[in-house]
Amino acid sequence: MSELLKGNAVIGQSGGPTAVINQSLVGVIEGLKGHPGVEKIYGAHHAVAGIVKGDFIELQDCTEDFLNKIANSPSSALGSSRDKPDAAYCKRIFEAFEKNNVRYFFYAGGNDSSDTCRIVNELAKEEGYELRCFHVPKTVDNDLVLNDHTPGFGSAAKFVAQAFMGDNLDNRSLPGIKINIIMGRHAGFLTAASILGRRENTDDGPHLVYVPEAPFDESKFIDDVEKVYKKFGRCLIAVSEGISDKDGTAIAAKLQENVETDAHGNVQLSGSGALGDLLSDLIKDKLGARTGEKLRVRADTFGYLQRSFVGCVSEVDQAEARQAGRRAAELALSGDLDGSIAIQRVSDDPYKVEFNRIELSDVAAKTQHLDTKYVVDGCNICDSFKKYLAPIVGELPEIATFTFDK
Amino acid sequence: MSELLKGNAVIGQSGGPTAVINQSLVGVIEGLKGHPGVEKIYGAHHAVAGIVKGDFIELQDCTEDFLNKIANSPSSALGSSRDKPDAAYCKRIFEAFEKNNVRYFFYAGGNDSSDTCRIVNELAKEEGYELRCFHVPKTVDNDLVLNDHTPGFGSAAKFVAQAFMGDNLDNRSLPGIKINIIMGRHAGFLTAASILGRRENTDDGPHLVYVPEAPFDESKFIDDVEKVYKKFGRCLIAVSEGISDKDGTAIAAKLQENVETDAHGNVQLSGSGALGDLLSDLIKDKLGARTGEKLRVRADTFGYLQRSFVGCVSEVDQAEARQAGRRAAELALSGDLDGSIAIQRVSDDPYKVEFNRIELSDVAAKTQHLDTKYVVDGCNICDSFKKYLAPIVGELPEIATFTFDK
Repeated sequence: MSELLKGNAVIGQSGGPTAVINQSLVGVIEGLKGHPGVEKIYGAHHAVAGIVKGDFIELQDCTEDFLNKIANSPSSALGSSRDKPDAAYCKRIFEAFEKNNVRYFFYAGGNDSSDTCRIVNELAKEEGYELRCFHVPKTVDNDLVLNDHTPGFGSAAKFVAQAFMGDNLDNRSLPGIKINIIMGRHAGFLTAASILGRRENTDDGPHLVYVPEAPFDESKFIDDVEKVYKKFGRCLIAVSEGISDKDGTAIAAKLQENVETDAHGNVQLSGSGALGDLLSDLIKDKLGARTGEKLRVRADTFGYLQRSFVGCVSEVDQAEARQAGRRAAELALSGDLDGSIAIQRVSDDPYKVEFNRIELSDVAAKTQHLDTKYVVDGCNICDSFKKYLAPIVGELPEIATFTFDK
Repeated sequence: MSELLKGNAVIGQSGGPTAVINQSLVGVIEGLKGHPGVEKIYGAHHAVAGIVKGDFIELQDCTEDFLNKIANSPSSALGSSRDKPDAAYCKRIFEAFEKNNVRYFFYAGGNDSSDTCRIVNELAKEEGYELRCFHVPKTVDNDLVLNDHTPGFGSAAKFVAQAFMGDNLDNRSLPGIKINIIMGRHAGFLTAASILGRRENTDDGPHLVYVPEAPFDESKFIDDVEKVYKKFGRCLIAVSEGISDKDGTAIAAKLQENVETDAHGNVQLSGSGALGDLLSDLIKDKLGARTGEKLRVRADTFGYLQRSFVGCVSEVDQAEARQAGRRAAELALSGDLDGSIAIQRVSDDPYKVEFNRIELSDVAAKTQHLDTKYVVDGCNICDSFKKYLAPIVGELPEIATFTFDK
């Protein structure tokens, strides 16, 4: 075993916040605290943006009680960043590390963040500077490869499932066509979570589910809605913000005139009700013309509530996010190791996962997609998806309603 | 005391569902069950629409366990209706009552529903048909006169408060300008609830709150946002869907080209992200021109989640909704009485309310507004509103975050 690497640690939180990213932060702190190799534990204010400015907060003296409160709070307590560092930016990160004798770097985020980790790690290697880099997985989109699922997803999925359970009853009470737009640019996991509370052999919605993995066709969409509406007199629809046509063009981008893009070149999908409203208008016009009715069509876009709502968290997700952080710290301190922590499922029943180290280059900048075996006819998710999802989300509240004769 | 009035009872649930309207339904059933004056307890499928069609379900034999599950489920389990009965419609309701020997009528809803109750009651009096009519209050808007607050409001307020607690941390983590649109056509209570989780002496948002009670002026809005944005580098804004200009014209109506109206002649406000997106564009254009920045502006519309989300309910609201239903049943059975149940506050500390009978004509078709003493400079809600609101919502989760030096 190599000599003990001594120095400071930096923790950063990147990308879109989640309900449990602070669990991972606290898990890393817990794993590092009191270790002879670790002097200061720095929290980077606004992730890489804070690192290059030397904007740090010291975390090693936080009390257990305060850390638990932080862990139970949504969003990134250290502040996040949407910066996507290029080679020059990563060089500045590395220089800040050298200057501050940082020997341990933990970065919680999605696949872009693991790529930043990888580049900084390679820079350090080139310069012969010993630096342990660990990526801690985080994304409500659940789209990291080699992971059974990612911290943050379970809680967001619980929010979506509970929202649909209630909205299904709302739609049943005042029948009409209702569209709900759900986060997920490239992966449909979160949208698919809309079916979790759907009781079998009932008229429960969502009746239609559209994910980015299945090409979206406007005229098929109208046909799908018409079929359900004729059968139930209502229709509850889950739509991923990232639905795209057969050529891979996002419907949101096709329909919007003034498309805003972010630093990653991505079209703005969240923080706007445009896609829902446009699909709503489409149904009013096209289906309305067929039925001759003035249809009651409504659209809600769940937006940022999915990732930051206080008071709707999966306990499994909380515990796993904490454990992922702790495991990253343990591995970094155990020897000359770098990598990313992957949650990998060992068994469904009883539900059991392992927290395994994978190479940064194996997860960086790659996207995991929803297995299309779960997609039915391009417009629904089959109930077998629940077997995968249920243990990650945990128990849902029990609800009931009356059945009326037709 | 008059001779015991014997016959059947009808319960209906009207208007927009809430998280606790089924508590009131179950409260009425509990109050009626086993009473010698009550034969069948009918639930009207889709409210008045079901009554005139004789579309009923019998409720007197439901088990306690099943009723408790119903009570804990959001939305109107009997189905609701947006019909606003005129005199002829009310006549049909009355005729259905005569035909089915209905002697007790309970109608849970807002001020339109109490008006229906009142008209049917007067018809019965004119015809010399003995009928006890009770309105059970229900509205997330909290806009019934003579009520300290209404069942449904507390749970919706809790949802809004918890959403803002999380979104404030989200906005702090990835700074920008964020608008959240909240339900409330004429009354700003629910929008004002956005401040409940705001910790004093912090940079917590919402930083700006716009309610229908204060005239909305676009250019003042931009000035308000600019001030906050300069101070905090971010701005979290709560906007009521019903904000109107000084002439009383809804901003949503002014800005939308194709305005949809419902059976009550109301402009469609919910189920669309249009108002948020338009305010968002306004800030991007007008404030962006002033600052020369490409501003990060996002808008979420909380939509139907506010009234039907499963798993975020005020326990006080649940208990009060149940009690309001039970009280209506008790009073109807106690003698020749009609009316509406009003929740009236006796004291703040300890929090204590009474469930008093008021006349149908005193509550029917009237709107309670948020007291403008709570509105600060047309763009905020003062912290004293929390004293009124907190006991209705109950405890909020405890959250924490780090403070960085400026």
